[in-house]
Amino acid sequence: MSKAKGSRLERELVTLFFETNNFMPIRVAGSGSTPLPAPDLLVGGKGRVLAIECKAGKDSRYIKKDQIQELTEFSARFGAEPWIGVRFDRLDWQFLKVGHLRISKGGNYFINKEIAAKSGISFQELTGIYKQEKL
Amino acid sequence: MSKAKGSRLERELVTLFFETNNFMPIRVAGSGSTPLPAPDLLVGGKGRVLAIECKAGKDSRYIKKDQIQELTEFSARFGAEPWIGVRFDRLDWQFLKVGHLRISKGGNYFINKEIAAKSGISFQELTGIYKQEKL
Repeated sequence: MSKAKGSRLERELVTLFFETNNFMPIRVAGSGSTPLPAPDLLVGGKGRVLAIECKAGKDSRYIKKDQIQELTEFSARFGAEPWIGVRFDRLDWQFLKVGHLRISKGGNYFINKEIAAKSGISFQELTGIYKQEKL
Repeated sequence: MSKAKGSRLERELVTLFFETNNFMPIRVAGSGSTPLPAPDLLVGGKGRVLAIECKAGKDSRYIKKDQIQELTEFSARFGAEPWIGVRFDRLDWQFLKVGHLRISKGGNYFINKEIAAKSGISFQELTGIYKQEKL
């Protein structure tokens, strides 16, 4: 996936959160390029803070272990819930906990459509607009 | 103040927060250039979230009313405490509530060394490293 497409999808998700009227999203500057751990998005609202690492792909995606470790460390220290937001082609955003990712060789992580369908929750479930059924 | 100097001072403040070990700071992407309200920095930790608009100057500084309105709106919706961080030449960072700024003509805001000395709190007071005396 190109960097431009990743940025476009991140902005798409920012707009989704902004339009809920309950949550306030921001994109983190230099995510992935600063020495300090940082997620792609931070979203606050309804007494919660969500730290979201965004991933997109055709139907599967590897995620480096360092990125997941950073997400976990950042969230613990900031006081945020760590989430992986995944956007596969022709599907809506789905959100997973770190524990739902599959661990691949070398300690890296892997996510595909099947895992997301089984363990992921929708934007509406994440934001509490609909009842959460899979948590 | 140049944009480069502003960015350098923001990064300086990010490092200060990071080094507390209690707080986790991020710089917001596109602050001041996106259609959505956003502060310069977001800092989480110890059950708090601080939204900080950073200003630097020789010994005084005007702040546009739109920026203060954005900071207030953002903070209310995100669930963050709104703060103005001000860094005057040869002085450490000082932090003020919106209500401590002076309102200038046209509904804009004004801050100088005198106001900051009277109503501002230090980084140590903001982060609770030392006792807060002025709040």
